Amino acid sequence: MTRPIDLNSDLGESFGAWSMGDDAALLRLVSSANVACGFHAGDASTMLATCREAAANGVTVGAHVSYRDLAGFGRRSMDVPPGELRDEVLYQLSALHGLARVAGTAVRYVKPHGALYNRIVRDDAQARAVVDAVLAFDPSLALLGLAGSAVEHAARDAGLRFVREAFVDRGYRADGTLVPRTEPGALLTDDAAIAARAVRMVEEGRVTAADGTDIPVEVDSLCVHGDTPGAVTMARAVRDALAGAGVAVEPFA
Amino acid sequence: MTRPIDLNSDLGESFGAWSMGDDAALLRLVSSANVACGFHAGDASTMLATCREAAANGVTVGAHVSYRDLAGFGRRSMDVPPGELRDEVLYQLSALHGLARVAGTAVRYVKPHGALYNRIVRDDAQARAVVDAVLAFDPSLALLGLAGSAVEHAARDAGLRFVREAFVDRGYRADGTLVPRTEPGALLTDDAAIAARAVRMVEEGRVTAADGTDIPVEVDSLCVHGDTPGAVTMARAVRDALAGAGVAVEPFA
Amino acid sequence: MTRPIDLNSDLGESFGAWSMGDDAALLRLVSSANVACGFHAGDASTMLATCREAAANGVTVGAHVSYRDLAGFGRRSMDVPPGELRDEVLYQLSALHGLARVAGTAVRYVKPHGALYNRIVRDDAQARAVVDAVLAFDPSLALLGLAGSAVEHAARDAGLRFVREAFVDRGYRADGTLVPRTEPGALLTDDAAIAARAVRMVEEGRVTAADGTDIPVEVDSLCVHGDTPGAVTMARAVRDALAGAGVAVEPFA
Amino acid sequence: MTRPIDLNSDLGESFGAWSMGDDAALLRLVSSANVACGFHAGDASTMLATCREAAANGVTVGAHVSYRDLAGFGRRSMDVPPGELRDEVLYQLSALHGLARVAGTAVRYVKPHGALYNRIVRDDAQARAVVDAVLAFDPSLALLGLAGSAVEHAARDAGLRFVREAFVDRGYRADGTLVPRTEPGALLTDDAAIAARAVRMVEEGRVTAADGTDIPVEVDSLCVHGDTPGAVTMARAVRDALAGAGVAVEPFA
Repeated sequence: MTRPIDLNSDLGESFGAWSMGDDAALLRLVSSANVACGFHAGDASTMLATCREAAANGVTVGAHVSYRDLAGFGRRSMDVPPGELRDEVLYQLSALHGLARVAGTAVRYVKPHGALYNRIVRDDAQARAVVDAVLAFDPSLALLGLAGSAVEHAARDAGLRFVREAFVDRGYRADGTLVPRTEPGALLTDDAAIAARAVRMVEEGRVTAADGTDIPVEVDSLCVHGDTPGAVTMARAVRDALAGAGVAVEPFA
Repeated sequence: MTRPIDLNSDLGESFGAWSMGDDAALLRLVSSANVACGFHAGDASTMLATCREAAANGVTVGAHVSYRDLAGFGRRSMDVPPGELRDEVLYQLSALHGLARVAGTAVRYVKPHGALYNRIVRDDAQARAVVDAVLAFDPSLALLGLAGSAVEHAARDAGLRFVREAFVDRGYRADGTLVPRTEPGALLTDDAAIAARAVRMVEEGRVTAADGTDIPVEVDSLCVHGDTPGAVTMARAVRDALAGAGVAVEPFA
Repeated sequence: MTRPIDLNSDLGESFGAWSMGDDAALLRLVSSANVACGFHAGDASTMLATCREAAANGVTVGAHVSYRDLAGFGRRSMDVPPGELRDEVLYQLSALHGLARVAGTAVRYVKPHGALYNRIVRDDAQARAVVDAVLAFDPSLALLGLAGSAVEHAARDAGLRFVREAFVDRGYRADGTLVPRTEPGALLTDDAAIAARAVRMVEEGRVTAADGTDIPVEVDSLCVHGDTPGAVTMARAVRDALAGAGVAVEPFA
Repeated sequence: MTRPIDLNSDLGESFGAWSMGDDAALLRLVSSANVACGFHAGDASTMLATCREAAANGVTVGAHVSYRDLAGFGRRSMDVPPGELRDEVLYQLSALHGLARVAGTAVRYVKPHGALYNRIVRDDAQARAVVDAVLAFDPSLALLGLAGSAVEHAARDAGLRFVREAFVDRGYRADGTLVPRTEPGALLTDDAAIAARAVRMVEEGRVTAADGTDIPVEVDSLCVHGDTPGAVTMARAVRDALAGAGVAVEPFA
């Protein structure tokens, strides 16, 4: 019998008059919600409502922390000094945790967003700043990120639980890194293929890279993107395929 | 023997490259620090550092919550719908509380800032929104504001502890309200007179209004402003005068 | 033969990763584009692209100036001191004008947005601040607003051209003011009725108020909202009905 | 007889309730004012007032454009895509130009601020984005930056006038680059030495590097920093020394 797997998605990314994604639908499909904390998206009311809906659906809440960059949606890498970065992560984590408590739940993990996520794959100082923030806030929280990254090493060194995520709809290179979005093969769009891939990632711990090589992939949580038009359909296909294979979807936390 | 009194001041109002006030000096004089939460002032590092210094000085931390208005320093009244306002207060309160915990202390009270402070003297809906935020976050927190205000009524109706503050350097009208800043007599500047007034407010519960009338003033905490050039000198004069009169300065919380 | 009429719509209200409205479709239907200037919506690239598309469609560009309030989309009234407000309007107007020039067009008018629009119906000081900004920037620009408002008076007193707008899909009260959005009858949704109403406003200068009274309405420009789901269909219905009645749609400027 | 030289300083860096620098004093000493445009500092009223004071003192106005980063004062390098960066520079330049016109003057040049200034010393794509913005806005404007930088090459390739600046109080390395602020020798503090150095830069086109090497320095404008406590005293020392050597201080533009 296969172990259960976590499905996570980026949610709560509306801001004021602007809405993004179909959070209500996704919250019925995933087990972990990466909730924006106000720095790249997410006003206070959206954060609170997202936590409430997550709680109502039995979905675990994580803090989707970001560079302070509303205009760029947190997608622009920034040379934030580590001390400042740690404090800005703490601020976001604290804000979401308070709102989550009011919603009857709690923040259980931290997932860096966008450019910060990508940067701490290699940037040791910023990776360590994120780890320091989590440690200072609550060392029982998990940190979610890319397997083999600088942030995984920093987290494990610090004794934090690290949750390795894989991307069901992103192309992989033979070395296990993701195909950059600017290159062909970066994004998969066929739901059936994506769903089959998700099952194989969980059951066999393997995925076929863009060049055809079959490579290992370590995965504790599968990420399904929330901000694309077909996000809900894709998430449902993944969820159904996992169910068909006898894989339960459960929060890692 | 006279009961002890609380001295509070607005602190942590720097933001990024801009600094404001001499927080280090004031934290040696006051007993309660109203710490800005990022909406009118206060970046994450400033908030954390202010909480740490407050803790080191035995000063109680309060959340100085504001309208979201960095450009106007929270001094411009805004028609924020009550639900949004409640959530924005919750966000700020949560953010500061998390940072305060990391600094080894905790948020013990909430003091609305600037235009929000003034607005909820009369605006029942916004006053209730602030009270709702505090209730939802932690009903054991106190709310600090003007005696006889809409927010005092809302707080007491909801069972929240309300802390009445008086202003040592602001002119009062015969009806107990403050002389608006646009009118003569709004601001007192003579430190000796201010200090004597502070002592009388505490010992006798009375103050002389701008028109010469002697009026009662109910006070649980005296506010000394932190953002004026002479703030530290004035606070020291008040503190010394209270000591001379045998009045201890202690946090209300 | 009936005089031509202007159709205006709020456009360029996307911001960063968030998009709003179907600007491309609306720019083929209207004659004047109220372009957001960055204070309630509109990043720099959106502003430039909107000006370019407006120019390509022969649509006149106006500055849709707002309170500085991204989180509230400029829908929250603010007590901005008149001098500050004037300068903030000047800043927005200048920014858009520069981008419009690069796009091969120019700003021809100013239309206050949201809460500012509503406030200067009655608030003389803020109305005058907006007028002062336009005067200081370029007294040949027109100001677009509600007939009979404080801002109309201020504009005419200052010698500015004032363009009176009517709302094809908003309910009117017998006194000529709009039914507030919180009351029934505030919003019309039947496209055929709206289109017929638009034609009658132009041809007869009259509209049926919510209580059935037939009232006069002075109109130089008809506003079709851009941010609702059915905005394009409604705008097309209005445009077609005007064409059917022999009314040309032309910029007022 | 020695040619005249330009003295430039970063001004208008207050924001809302926060003030920075003694602009009034510096505007009596420099010939060119780099005026913040709202992205790292500078609210609308500050921008307008700074332009007015510059005009009154016969000081030329330049646009001190920045990454969009109020919290970091534009000191954090950002991976802004070139198209976005060009548009954000255009927005800032447009906003300041409109306010400068109202103040009776005009923007004559562009000087990138902080992290953007440093980044386009080497980053060709961002350098080109800044050049493209200036070209699109007004190809008769000058661009001020570091001699030998990527942005100098991009500007000259595009036919823009490039103004080479030298720093009177920054340490140089033997290769002509600046000693990083994190290293010893980055900042000079002795006013007499700084003043003598300024004169030699202009008269001889040479400066002594931190390691004692005597190196050439090409200079069309000397930068005197405005945000340090001793800024005014230092600027006065430089100005006096230049006067003593018979060097006139005149805007390059």
